Amino acid sequence: MPSASASRRSQEKPREIMDAAEDYAKERYGVSSMIQSQEKPDRVLVRVSDLTVHRADEVVWVRARVHTSRAKGKQCFLVLRQQQFNVQALVAVGDHASKQMVKFAANINKESIVDIEGVVRKVNQKIGSCTQQDVELHVQKIYVISLAEPRLPLQLDDAVRPEVEGEEEGRATVNQDTRLDNRVIDLRTSTSQAVFRLQSGICQLFRETLINKGFVEIQTPKIISAASEGGANVFTVSYFKNNAYLAQSPQLYKQMCICADFEKVFCIGPVFRAEDSNTHRHLTEFVGLDIEMAFNYHYHEVVEEIADTLVQIFKGLQERFQTEIHTVNKQFPCEPFKFLEPTLRLEYCEALAMLREAGIEMGDEEDLSTPNEKLLGRLVKEKYDTDFYILDKYPLAVRPFYTMPDPRNPKQSNSYDMFMRGEEILSGAQRIHDPQLLTERALHHGIGLERVTMLFLGLHNVRQTSMFPRDPKRLTP
Amino acid sequence: MPSASASRRSQEKPREIMDAAEDYAKERYGVSSMIQSQEKPDRVLVRVSDLTVHRADEVVWVRARVHTSRAKGKQCFLVLRQQQFNVQALVAVGDHASKQMVKFAANINKESIVDIEGVVRKVNQKIGSCTQQDVELHVQKIYVISLAEPRLPLQLDDAVRPEVEGEEEGRATVNQDTRLDNRVIDLRTSTSQAVFRLQSGICQLFRETLINKGFVEIQTPKIISAASEGGANVFTVSYFKNNAYLAQSPQLYKQMCICADFEKVFCIGPVFRAEDSNTHRHLTEFVGLDIEMAFNYHYHEVVEEIADTLVQIFKGLQERFQTEIHTVNKQFPCEPFKFLEPTLRLEYCEALAMLREAGIEMGDEEDLSTPNEKLLGRLVKEKYDTDFYILDKYPLAVRPFYTMPDPRNPKQSNSYDMFMRGEEILSGAQRIHDPQLLTERALHHGIGLERVTMLFLGLHNVRQTSMFPRDPKRLTP
Repeated sequence: MPSASASRRSQEKPREIMDAAEDYAKERYGVSSMIQSQEKPDRVLVRVSDLTVHRADEVVWVRARVHTSRAKGKQCFLVLRQQQFNVQALVAVGDHASKQMVKFAANINKESIVDIEGVVRKVNQKIGSCTQQDVELHVQKIYVISLAEPRLPLQLDDAVRPEVEGEEEGRATVNQDTRLDNRVIDLRTSTSQAVFRLQSGICQLFRETLINKGFVEIQTPKIISAASEGGANVFTVSYFKNNAYLAQSPQLYKQMCICADFEKVFCIGPVFRAEDSNTHRHLTEFVGLDIEMAFNYHYHEVVEEIADTLVQIFKGLQERFQTEIHTVNKQFPCEPFKFLEPTLRLEYCEALAMLREAGIEMGDEEDLSTPNEKLLGRLVKEKYDTDFYILDKYPLAVRPFYTMPDPRNPKQSNSYDMFMRGEEILSGAQRIHDPQLLTERALHHGIGLERVTMLFLGLHNVRQTSMFPRDPKRLTP
Repeated sequence: MPSASASRRSQEKPREIMDAAEDYAKERYGVSSMIQSQEKPDRVLVRVSDLTVHRADEVVWVRARVHTSRAKGKQCFLVLRQQQFNVQALVAVGDHASKQMVKFAANINKESIVDIEGVVRKVNQKIGSCTQQDVELHVQKIYVISLAEPRLPLQLDDAVRPEVEGEEEGRATVNQDTRLDNRVIDLRTSTSQAVFRLQSGICQLFRETLINKGFVEIQTPKIISAASEGGANVFTVSYFKNNAYLAQSPQLYKQMCICADFEKVFCIGPVFRAEDSNTHRHLTEFVGLDIEMAFNYHYHEVVEEIADTLVQIFKGLQERFQTEIHTVNKQFPCEPFKFLEPTLRLEYCEALAMLREAGIEMGDEEDLSTPNEKLLGRLVKEKYDTDFYILDKYPLAVRPFYTMPDPRNPKQSNSYDMFMRGEEILSGAQRIHDPQLLTERALHHGIGLERVTMLFLGLHNVRQTSMFPRDPKRLTP
């Protein structure tokens, strides 16, 4: 936020210039006064993303941030940024702009918000540095709406620089802690804008798909009276005269809903884990996408429903969020996410055979290590051309004691994991049950929103896909 | 949950009957064995709500709960319930059913889940006690899938009885604490099924509408490092070696998103208030529907966007959830919710005039009491035929010091409340700002999901519209 003295100085500067008698453009620029809801002008503000050749020669109003400015003789080039999009603007001495106006434009601090009236002009040579490559804006009026500090804690250009380029050329990049300490600025980058729009899309598609399949969205309490999963890694809350706990999962409540005949429920909400681990994929608070459904005869009914839900999300993202995927890829290049319809379901013994063929030595009832999961992901991609698959029928020996054995083969179990780009995103199993309980036929699934976003986009740290991440060392912003 | 001995007994009973040599129907009923995902039968289970005259004379399979059963000579009448719907089923001695089978059916505990094969038959006289009034099911096979306890802590029929009828006739109803202590059963009632389906619809419509308006859904942290609203009424969390707090609102984070150029954001998530108040409308944890958007020139841009969002929700509910509204009205009769398009915006001085005309004495700069708000709601309903309206331009004197004065009238302010059925659901204001801040032009709005559900349906307590309510005295279930 600008200090009072800095802003006063900058307001005086234009006034001083405007006082000069010879300024024929003095009404055409300046610092706007406070907006007090005095008027409702019928001025239409055009989106930067809408500035294309279709609007060539139109006069438009745009409200955007000054991303960069560069004065050059009687001209000033600005790059105006709005969310993921930017456009070049030109203030040049002439009929509309005076020398003083060009100087005013050149002195506007980066990240200030301006209102600009200008003519959209087709350019002869594509402007490679902007998203709007075919046009530029010839400025006729420019007013500062919100003035930024002259010095920023991080440069937006540094924050979107691909890391490889940064290392090779020795140019600055911004580390994760600096980003998080200055999250408001970091979230303005085109990459952050795209990541969190796509994340919003994941939530929307998850719900849309499940509602269409007849699910009901439920809200489950986060403050609970007893630790939900055995008491380890749980946060304690002072609750009036007593203690309470933060829910580590909505599982109990979802199961109650199944017993209460809702049949298919889902919820999206925070889950809390008091784990003192500092890795690229652990947070103390994350957003769970949770599903619970009763099945009629076979747990594959559920497996198929979940896998199809994920496929609908992937399809929707590729249909509706191509711009966002493209924006993120500019900074973090990554192969497009591949999947099959219906989803590939591999049995554990098939996966073992593939790994052994690749030279890995593993016993029939041995669990997959993380490097072997990654390797399997690559082998599956090569053989089946998919980044998403189900691994079914895990050996009974590597799953919890309450896992239902496969009725066809007592060494196998009715349990499975789902993988994206070689990382597990979801683990499920049919449980051994008492035939009197309804919960017998319900399967619980929790997926972490941050992790799905990270793996879909091929990013490397859940802190990139959590807007305000929480870990043992970070509680701010 | 049934105890082991109870369930053993009940399994023996049918076996004993089935052993009798003369039972020609013995394969047609019984208790099903455990489902181990052994088979995937291609049997289609028909929904109870789909049992209409269109299926007359079809043989169908249905999986439902035994709501009631009544034996009468060689016949047994069952009411089968599935969520909000129920249908009458008849087991009668004849080709398909033996005497033993009728007895078996009559002895199935209420709330057990059964699979039934039967023929859909049109009835001559409407069955008033069922939602499927024009047909009944003539049972050919009946298997118990999940056996309920013989004695239940509350009767479902009591739990859906309209309160007036209960008082008049002295018939049992179920009080709120018994309901909450046995929430799994209480949630099975047709009323609960309808309330929480409609609530899921509110969330869905809220998001749909806002996504269509260009909003982005965000996720905000619930564990924060400092109390968000001055430190009062905040829950403390033990966070590793330190203390942290539970967020009382996502406001700070939403504002950061506005400063970070997201322009229009919303979130749905829990908010926490450590208030020791036990009223019909306070919970310690509730679900906030939160909106934050920047406006360009006038705060009415935001007011109109919010009001339209609510109108889209009301319309969507009335279009898509007529069955649910009807189901709730059976227990809680209530006038349909009325609203106008565009929403009525009343200025405070107009409201004062209406109240004075109705005999209320109030000063120009006096605030509305709760009874006067209720009365105003009735007057507005009479005059404008709407249950939803905006009250704009509150006297500056009754609003916080940072509220923006109305530029046309210094005694008024740019602030407003929105009302549903005479109760405030949302309060907003433009704040006095420093012209250098972007947040100047953003307005925050939080609406409580439980309260909107309650007022839309004309219910009387937010505990009816919170699945697992939390208050100072209740942390379970």
